[in-house]
Amino acid sequence: MGVHGGTVQAERIEQDDRELYRVLDIEVGADGLLVIEQVMTVHSGNDVDYPLVASLELARSGVADGYEVLLARHALAWEARWNRIDVRVTGDPVTQAVLRYNLYHNVIATPMHADHLPIGARGLSCQAYQGAAFWDQEVFNLPMWVHTFPEVARNLLIYRHKTLDGARRKAADLGYTGAFYAWISGDTGDELCPDFFFVDVLTGRPIRNHFNDWQMHISPDVAVTIDGYLRATGDTTFLAERGAEIVFEVARFLASFVYLRPADDHYHLLRLLGPDEYHENVDDNLFSVEQSRIALAEACQLWDLLDAERPEVLARLRDELGLGDDERALWGDILERLVVIEPDPDTRLLEQFEGYFELEDIPPDELRQRLQHPDEYWGWPNGIAVHTQVTKQPDVVQLFVSQPEHYDRATVEANYDYYLPRTQHGSSLSRPMYALVAARLGRVAEAEELFLRGATVDLLADSHPAPGGTFIGGIHVAACGATWQVAVLGFGGVHLRTDHVEVAPRLPEGWERLQFGLAWRGCWLEVDACNDGVVLTADPENPADVEVAVHGQRVVVPPGEARSVAFDIDSELISS
Amino acid sequence: MGVHGGTVQAERIEQDDRELYRVLDIEVGADGLLVIEQVMTVHSGNDVDYPLVASLELARSGVADGYEVLLARHALAWEARWNRIDVRVTGDPVTQAVLRYNLYHNVIATPMHADHLPIGARGLSCQAYQGAAFWDQEVFNLPMWVHTFPEVARNLLIYRHKTLDGARRKAADLGYTGAFYAWISGDTGDELCPDFFFVDVLTGRPIRNHFNDWQMHISPDVAVTIDGYLRATGDTTFLAERGAEIVFEVARFLASFVYLRPADDHYHLLRLLGPDEYHENVDDNLFSVEQSRIALAEACQLWDLLDAERPEVLARLRDELGLGDDERALWGDILERLVVIEPDPDTRLLEQFEGYFELEDIPPDELRQRLQHPDEYWGWPNGIAVHTQVTKQPDVVQLFVSQPEHYDRATVEANYDYYLPRTQHGSSLSRPMYALVAARLGRVAEAEELFLRGATVDLLADSHPAPGGTFIGGIHVAACGATWQVAVLGFGGVHLRTDHVEVAPRLPEGWERLQFGLAWRGCWLEVDACNDGVVLTADPENPADVEVAVHGQRVVVPPGEARSVAFDIDSELISS
Repeated sequence: MGVHGGTVQAERIEQDDRELYRVLDIEVGADGLLVIEQVMTVHSGNDVDYPLVASLELARSGVADGYEVLLARHALAWEARWNRIDVRVTGDPVTQAVLRYNLYHNVIATPMHADHLPIGARGLSCQAYQGAAFWDQEVFNLPMWVHTFPEVARNLLIYRHKTLDGARRKAADLGYTGAFYAWISGDTGDELCPDFFFVDVLTGRPIRNHFNDWQMHISPDVAVTIDGYLRATGDTTFLAERGAEIVFEVARFLASFVYLRPADDHYHLLRLLGPDEYHENVDDNLFSVEQSRIALAEACQLWDLLDAERPEVLARLRDELGLGDDERALWGDILERLVVIEPDPDTRLLEQFEGYFELEDIPPDELRQRLQHPDEYWGWPNGIAVHTQVTKQPDVVQLFVSQPEHYDRATVEANYDYYLPRTQHGSSLSRPMYALVAARLGRVAEAEELFLRGATVDLLADSHPAPGGTFIGGIHVAACGATWQVAVLGFGGVHLRTDHVEVAPRLPEGWERLQFGLAWRGCWLEVDACNDGVVLTADPENPADVEVAVHGQRVVVPPGEARSVAFDIDSELISS
Repeated sequence: MGVHGGTVQAERIEQDDRELYRVLDIEVGADGLLVIEQVMTVHSGNDVDYPLVASLELARSGVADGYEVLLARHALAWEARWNRIDVRVTGDPVTQAVLRYNLYHNVIATPMHADHLPIGARGLSCQAYQGAAFWDQEVFNLPMWVHTFPEVARNLLIYRHKTLDGARRKAADLGYTGAFYAWISGDTGDELCPDFFFVDVLTGRPIRNHFNDWQMHISPDVAVTIDGYLRATGDTTFLAERGAEIVFEVARFLASFVYLRPADDHYHLLRLLGPDEYHENVDDNLFSVEQSRIALAEACQLWDLLDAERPEVLARLRDELGLGDDERALWGDILERLVVIEPDPDTRLLEQFEGYFELEDIPPDELRQRLQHPDEYWGWPNGIAVHTQVTKQPDVVQLFVSQPEHYDRATVEANYDYYLPRTQHGSSLSRPMYALVAARLGRVAEAEELFLRGATVDLLADSHPAPGGTFIGGIHVAACGATWQVAVLGFGGVHLRTDHVEVAPRLPEGWERLQFGLAWRGCWLEVDACNDGVVLTADPENPADVEVAVHGQRVVVPPGEARSVAFDIDSELISS
């Protein structure tokens, strides 16, 4: 505490029942002015060994600096963040406010400064989920960081490296090898998700949800995220020091998870729980299969790359992990014979999992009428959605977000149209992901509506979320990250590739301009987009030119320069 | 109708609301004697094309024969049955009556005359299960027939041959090849078990029991039964004409069902429902695995045997079924690498399925207190037994009944002691099977108690069985067959081998003598057993000597002769 304009004569602590008072006798000077600055500091055992010592020390230096300096430092720190993460929407102040609300929460929930802490699924807003991470971290929050502060994305991935032992323990506990990441991951990476998560509110009996042992896509999700991070940054140091180990351990896990079916000579993923958590115990969930395919391909390519270019790194990893040639061969074999789920040639529909299309087809609102209690869990083991096609959130469509380059427009559109009316949006992540895909399809009005509903899930919340009797409210931090994704990856049409950046803006009617910045392979690019063109400005400090494809038109932006690209948003070429 | 002693003057039909009267004006003779014989005949469309015609014809010939002839014919028919199936217990008239009650029901439920009809699980006693067969037919009813009327056992196995197409359709519907026998099998062999069988009585919601798609042991059960039939009869004609086709199609089904896990290089059976129906969705259920192992071994041996001795039969089957060398090779490979579940070296315990021992260990009576409604189904998906070790009926122990020669005494005893207190006896087949194993272990007092409770399940029934709201009462026909098994296979210690008959009597205290007959490879042997010896009498018509091992002592019984063998029931040699 700093006292300016007076002199402290005496100081004592008074207690009144459960309240504590710090009482100061201060002699005020002749001008009658008194300024008291109270400085509070927060440290936790997560960051330092002796939080009390560190807090006192920082508080004293804060008092010495004084309010004005602290305020300026605070503003500078926030300015540095907003300069990179801000997404400006001109013409729609409500959307602008809603958007910034989400970006703000994505920032404050992220331990930007640390490489050993996860993003809590509810941030600092409540105790639900105990500050632990889900796939939310990689799939929903991390993209903003990859595109704006790659060093923060790196920190979050280092967290996954530091918790490899927990993931290894989980795998071993369940009879697998390699790294099976925790569905709910805290400081050690050990599984925090209990066997019995929800309660059947109708009977009071605990439900054995299999979030912890069947939702295996978490591991390939981490590997796929590393793939995206490397594409966006070219960070080979991280790859050699951390990334490759994660990717190899995930591949190893997958090799221990798959089964070969002699009947069709294909490998299968059995007994899964995909993003749509209402359907447990399913086989060949498309999302899980395709994420696993990428993860295995990544592992094989990385192995070969390291073998060719960094043999000492491969040798070290092989030694440390005890990786044999037989394992590399098995990964290749699995990759070659992993089940292929083709879109139906006529309808282009992809089946969410084996047998999904045979389930009862009923609209979610009609299904809802079968509820006997508003807090009933809709899923496993006998909730109202289990034997129907009603899904909690995008599952097939989530794949189009994760792997946009692998699906053609007709397939994306057909599946979006099929699955959206069958989605109950039981997750806050549901509407944002549909919004993202809708925006990329150029269905901007529909996308905008989904986007706004998703982005206001907490701001306009009118319910007390307690499915299966378990309170899981608080700020939906992943939805905040997803909101950024809709704005930049959806309406902005951004996709980072190894050798260029794709930008394909499609703005909702009321948005005059959409502006955002992008970090890519050590460069910084500002994008100022309208529905008839973009201005791309490269930072003067950029180490190289940035090659951009704007709705397919290639343009090179040298450091410190700007380029305008005009396009016709309605042209068939662009929308196809 | 036959009228004796009078003359019919007129005959008319009168109707009174829902009652029909046949009114006869009869002029009675001078002696005043009148005998009216009403002959009723029953035919069904199952047996003849025109039941009405056949019934009338038979009724007319019945009237012509008259009551005395019909009665004598009836008595002769029953005598022929009782002569073979009867099991006589001297010294315990109650047990004798109970036993005969069960044998009687096993007889009347069996379509002895036909080779295209199954044994209905409730016989003719009620409409539950619609007269269709379960694994009950092969595993519980058929042993009595194999040991007494092999031609009836043959008929029942021909029924399985005639319904192969239904089993093939079921396999194909579920994505398999070969023959997946129906869990509930009627005249065509198509699956009659609906997807939703029980209802959750607490919520009124239907339950998706997986009796029809996960309880796959039915197919190997049929193949194993054929193996036992062949051992007991040497009926190579049946084998060539019917049996081999069934066995090959079952092996083919198994080859399409298994998965190879690269992680341990073993084939596994996944997502099963074993005899203990309270645990669905389990992997490597020991019973299913071991029955499948026998079925596959049988298929390979049969293939090789036919190849060597009846190449024209193998060629025909290969041609008709499109069986390739690759299939035979795959069966051999599966057999070689099928998961092996060893007893724990210290405790000798065999795990019912992967992970069973990790479930909550709670006595059934304590568990029962968690019921919220008396009719609740204890099993899938969230019944009170699901997450506990409480089983509905023997599962590991059922294996000791099916394959007694494969398990040593220490293993049988350890598992009997472990599983019995954890069994809720939710099936009428539970206590008889424990009784059988207990009798073989020489624990006759315990066996007798279990035997009597099992044998009186219907006679002393005091409940209205409607688990999951589905009435499944009526006569428990399979339990009747099981009762014969306890008496002859358990207390009599009978086991038919290819080259001899094992007999090892161990009688409960109150039983002075136990007498029964055995059919074996065309011979008939009467066994008259006490606790200190047996008298074995071979039928004069026997085509060959019968070699018998009495508690391990070999004796040869020539046609028409008798042999006595004494033994000391308490000797250690016998009980080990």
